[in-house]
Amino acid sequence: MTDIQFVPVTEFDRVRRLNMSDLDRAALYADLCRLNTLSMIAYAGSGHIGSSFSSLDIVTWLFLNEMKTDDGEADGSDDLYFSSKGHDAPGLYAAMIALGKLPADNLLKLRRLGGLPGHPDIATTPQIVTNTGSLGMGISKAKGMLFADRLLGRDRRIFVMTGDGELQEGQIWESLGSAANHKLDKLTVIVDHNKFQSDIYVRETSDLGDLEAKFAAFGWYVARCDGHDFAAFSAALADVGKVKGKPKIIIADTIKGRGVSFMESRNLAPRELYRFHSGAPSPEDYARALDELTLRANHAFDTVGAEPLRLKGEARPARSLPQAPQRIIPAYTEALIAAADADKRIVALDGDLILDTGLIPFREKFPDRFLECGIAEMDMVSQAGGMALQGLVPLVHSFACFLAPRPAEQIFNNASEHTKVIYVASLAGLVPGGPGHSHQSVNDIALHSAIPGMEMAEPCCAAEVAPLLDYLLKGHKGSGYLRLVSIPCDIPYELPADYRAVPGHGVELRPGKDAVIVGYGPVMLPQAYQAAELLKARHGLDVAVVNLPWLNRVNAAWLRKMLEGRRALFTVDNHFVRGGQGRMIAAAVAELGLDRMPILRSFGLTELPACGQNDEVLRAHGLDAESLASAIGETLTGKVAA
Amino acid sequence: MTDIQFVPVTEFDRVRRLNMSDLDRAALYADLCRLNTLSMIAYAGSGHIGSSFSSLDIVTWLFLNEMKTDDGEADGSDDLYFSSKGHDAPGLYAAMIALGKLPADNLLKLRRLGGLPGHPDIATTPQIVTNTGSLGMGISKAKGMLFADRLLGRDRRIFVMTGDGELQEGQIWESLGSAANHKLDKLTVIVDHNKFQSDIYVRETSDLGDLEAKFAAFGWYVARCDGHDFAAFSAALADVGKVKGKPKIIIADTIKGRGVSFMESRNLAPRELYRFHSGAPSPEDYARALDELTLRANHAFDTVGAEPLRLKGEARPARSLPQAPQRIIPAYTEALIAAADADKRIVALDGDLILDTGLIPFREKFPDRFLECGIAEMDMVSQAGGMALQGLVPLVHSFACFLAPRPAEQIFNNASEHTKVIYVASLAGLVPGGPGHSHQSVNDIALHSAIPGMEMAEPCCAAEVAPLLDYLLKGHKGSGYLRLVSIPCDIPYELPADYRAVPGHGVELRPGKDAVIVGYGPVMLPQAYQAAELLKARHGLDVAVVNLPWLNRVNAAWLRKMLEGRRALFTVDNHFVRGGQGRMIAAAVAELGLDRMPILRSFGLTELPACGQNDEVLRAHGLDAESLASAIGETLTGKVAA
Repeated sequence: MTDIQFVPVTEFDRVRRLNMSDLDRAALYADLCRLNTLSMIAYAGSGHIGSSFSSLDIVTWLFLNEMKTDDGEADGSDDLYFSSKGHDAPGLYAAMIALGKLPADNLLKLRRLGGLPGHPDIATTPQIVTNTGSLGMGISKAKGMLFADRLLGRDRRIFVMTGDGELQEGQIWESLGSAANHKLDKLTVIVDHNKFQSDIYVRETSDLGDLEAKFAAFGWYVARCDGHDFAAFSAALADVGKVKGKPKIIIADTIKGRGVSFMESRNLAPRELYRFHSGAPSPEDYARALDELTLRANHAFDTVGAEPLRLKGEARPARSLPQAPQRIIPAYTEALIAAADADKRIVALDGDLILDTGLIPFREKFPDRFLECGIAEMDMVSQAGGMALQGLVPLVHSFACFLAPRPAEQIFNNASEHTKVIYVASLAGLVPGGPGHSHQSVNDIALHSAIPGMEMAEPCCAAEVAPLLDYLLKGHKGSGYLRLVSIPCDIPYELPADYRAVPGHGVELRPGKDAVIVGYGPVMLPQAYQAAELLKARHGLDVAVVNLPWLNRVNAAWLRKMLEGRRALFTVDNHFVRGGQGRMIAAAVAELGLDRMPILRSFGLTELPACGQNDEVLRAHGLDAESLASAIGETLTGKVAA
Repeated sequence: MTDIQFVPVTEFDRVRRLNMSDLDRAALYADLCRLNTLSMIAYAGSGHIGSSFSSLDIVTWLFLNEMKTDDGEADGSDDLYFSSKGHDAPGLYAAMIALGKLPADNLLKLRRLGGLPGHPDIATTPQIVTNTGSLGMGISKAKGMLFADRLLGRDRRIFVMTGDGELQEGQIWESLGSAANHKLDKLTVIVDHNKFQSDIYVRETSDLGDLEAKFAAFGWYVARCDGHDFAAFSAALADVGKVKGKPKIIIADTIKGRGVSFMESRNLAPRELYRFHSGAPSPEDYARALDELTLRANHAFDTVGAEPLRLKGEARPARSLPQAPQRIIPAYTEALIAAADADKRIVALDGDLILDTGLIPFREKFPDRFLECGIAEMDMVSQAGGMALQGLVPLVHSFACFLAPRPAEQIFNNASEHTKVIYVASLAGLVPGGPGHSHQSVNDIALHSAIPGMEMAEPCCAAEVAPLLDYLLKGHKGSGYLRLVSIPCDIPYELPADYRAVPGHGVELRPGKDAVIVGYGPVMLPQAYQAAELLKARHGLDVAVVNLPWLNRVNAAWLRKMLEGRRALFTVDNHFVRGGQGRMIAAAVAELGLDRMPILRSFGLTELPACGQNDEVLRAHGLDAESLASAIGETLTGKVAA
């Protein structure tokens, strides 16, 4: 079976009308939401199954039985619900579609341009309460909303879902105290305590200890229940509902992947990776899961004498995949291990992304030199600072979207000590475009390029990873930021055989006497390369493509020579134009005192990154080869393309 | 008496040899350290008395009686001590000087160029363990050091001092869990629990609740004692010393300003501001405090039959003060209140700096629309985001050094919601130069200039505050960053009578046909103005000075016109050159497609900001009028000044 099956909204309507207990109805409803969640993710090609499934019983019960919603008045009297962790969005979307809060055609639009972003976004999705996905902000946001409610005379409750791995973030604890001091009893936090974070058990990553005691010590009223037992959860809600003068927390014990037997996080060995945190299920896993959910739903329908479930099939969409892609992360793993073999001072820190950042082989080989820090980027970065002060050479790993902004002050503080810390920031840039702007790191160059002594570099292919890492470790005195793209990329160029990493100097990937496109990284340089090919074919223009892997410096002499005889310079940033490499180059060109200035134009993001498939997103921002070729051709020929 | 009296190091040597109990000796020693702390701050003209005094008994006891230090071997076996809060540095310096760990001539060099920075800095001060001053990083750093110790086979203890207001920072709680999980029993944290944060009582700002329960819930061993009772503190150290397998915390109950009766934070009314948090004592207060400390010391000497204290006097240094300064913060207060009168949606949030950010009148007038958030910038910013989502217009206040970097991710997240939040960042820029680089915000433009919709502006005089605030509130659709200088500044120019804030457009403050200096703010524009006067007097050059209050945008048409007929453009940033306004302007000039490019040169910081008096610091970075005039004169005349 290659089709993907969805539960039509009419089926949810039918379930709401069935003669059955609230408890049974909620169980059936949640399972149908699981089915749609699973199918949305299978159709999209990626998404978070485990976390959606663990939270769906809670979300279902809140919407069906607890919250006052949709009285049709815009007076702010409806209760609010949002998830702080955000990556349970597919489950939330499924529930909202089931209730008619989102149009049903969104079932096919998860992680598509103009559809439902991988993490919640208020600008593009109706009825979403707040943007989440950067962990730890939810309770703070709810407090602000309640301050507004108090000032505006509104009376309603706010329910905030958090993850358990998310509780490692300092902002959670920073946010708790004043909620108690201000007696925010309209606030109920529900911890989806599924015991797993992205990679492995929470207790193996960074154990949370006695959660109940912690929240109680911060002045919160604490309840605890089985998050899959609707009666127990309902009782916990009733319990906290009676408490006045305190914010409340319900620790809901859940199971990651709940509802599909082989997706449930039971009986995993220590350090065994949970397989369904993100990504899409294989066709076989999808079929098995669909069968299981359908079977259980039909049993429930049958029990009350109702017709079996009617599903609607959609053809599994074709997906364009790279042909012979290069992968930067495995190249990094190899380079790191080689460096660590040669230098015993090298240690690696991880922020709960050991799989994605390529650190598992390092941990296996150098267990004493590896530190798992959990989802606690500030703490991780300052720990690295302490290590560096004591003679180690720490490399700090996370996704760029988390590693660059959250510990910005800690990175600056480390740099102020003139030690060496290397920040290895993966998942950098606009793509993958599916997770949404909380995960698209397109501001990180701006964040750290000004720090004295901070050298920032991004490899444009697998072969460039080792030379850049080597330079940051041994050639450069201060700290470094190694920016890594995580998606597989087809690379149409090769570095010269005698390639050396020379700070501030670039390397020509494609010759061209008329003009030059300068950029970095395996996302934009291939687009630039293809654009140059198109410009040759269409206009006979010889446009060079130059790789400048240095993100915050350019050598003036090299730049002057590179521009010789060329009448235009185009820069392409996998980043906002403002604060990106292109503006840095433009400012450097302005200072060269050239007799004749080249035409200058910078490409990159000027708006928040769109969410969608990678090719959609590049096109939406005019950063695909075709758009670049059009814009550059227009600039060089003075003619607008047909 | 105008002299400032210091305790010579020989007197500390004498005390260490006196025949008295360890307890009595520590008390005398700490008082003599207090005396030098007080005198260093009086001599420097600013510094943190209250926090130094509350922590000095602890520091004294640790150094005299507890820690293994200075065995002369560089094997890392010595115990380490550092303060995470950092602003108790004058007390620490006094103790280190007393022990011969720092040269005695440093007594006269607090907050001076090449001397002792306002907050600890390892690069410039021997035996300082780590750079602190940005709150909340200390425990994380110590954990990193202990990881290194474990890997390198070192066996020693680390003592970390924290403040109590500092415990509002999320990083503190983020750092606690893994210390317990890793059983870091070499780590002892001591909370200088003086019950006051910068402005008022901790409990009035953001109450900490049951501290002992909180730390215990995080798996730490908790002891508590009177931090001014040496026997009790010694017993607490012995107690925690016996505990294995857990990190330990000693909550030391102390009194801010301890040791000088009228500086002690006893019996203050709620919301009464504590007067000795930072700044220098008045000459009268200094004399009274000196008398009291001397009297008590002499009593102690007398009790053991020793000679009275011998002090060494130094003439109180002359200080150059602004003649008729303008103050930006009071102008902001006035503009804010006017705006809030007109728009009920406006609310203000503060991060424990209500006095410095000028919010007291706002709180008095609009108590319901004011939220004190404590030292919890991430939480504050996300709360503002929640308020904005619910229809309020929040203005978030703190020092730029804390408001820009710590909540960088939260600011981005708010911006992704397309709401309006105004970040009002005071103490921006290189000066005051006394507190050191943790407080010199010279990276903040870079941090946030790339965010779509974020408008950044800085007024160049008191009169420009209201128009800019007004534009950010009413003229601009998205969020804004209002960058404010906090020191009083002599302003040699006036805005034109018909001044209007036009985004991306600047205004000429001084005419000049030959060249132009463009900048912003009341620190650099007066320097530029004076430099232009010098250039006229010395070389007959007509150099214009232009105020461009917009930090991350410039209008191309305005820029083109402004450059007409001028052969050189100089930019002056109160910020790093990289990521500053000057580079933004240079890139814009490069794109203008001018027939003849002007000479371009950007002035600003290229290294970490130096610590010292304001004039020293400006000169050290070549940003005073004299240095600017030399550099510009050299560029324009081609001759190096004599």
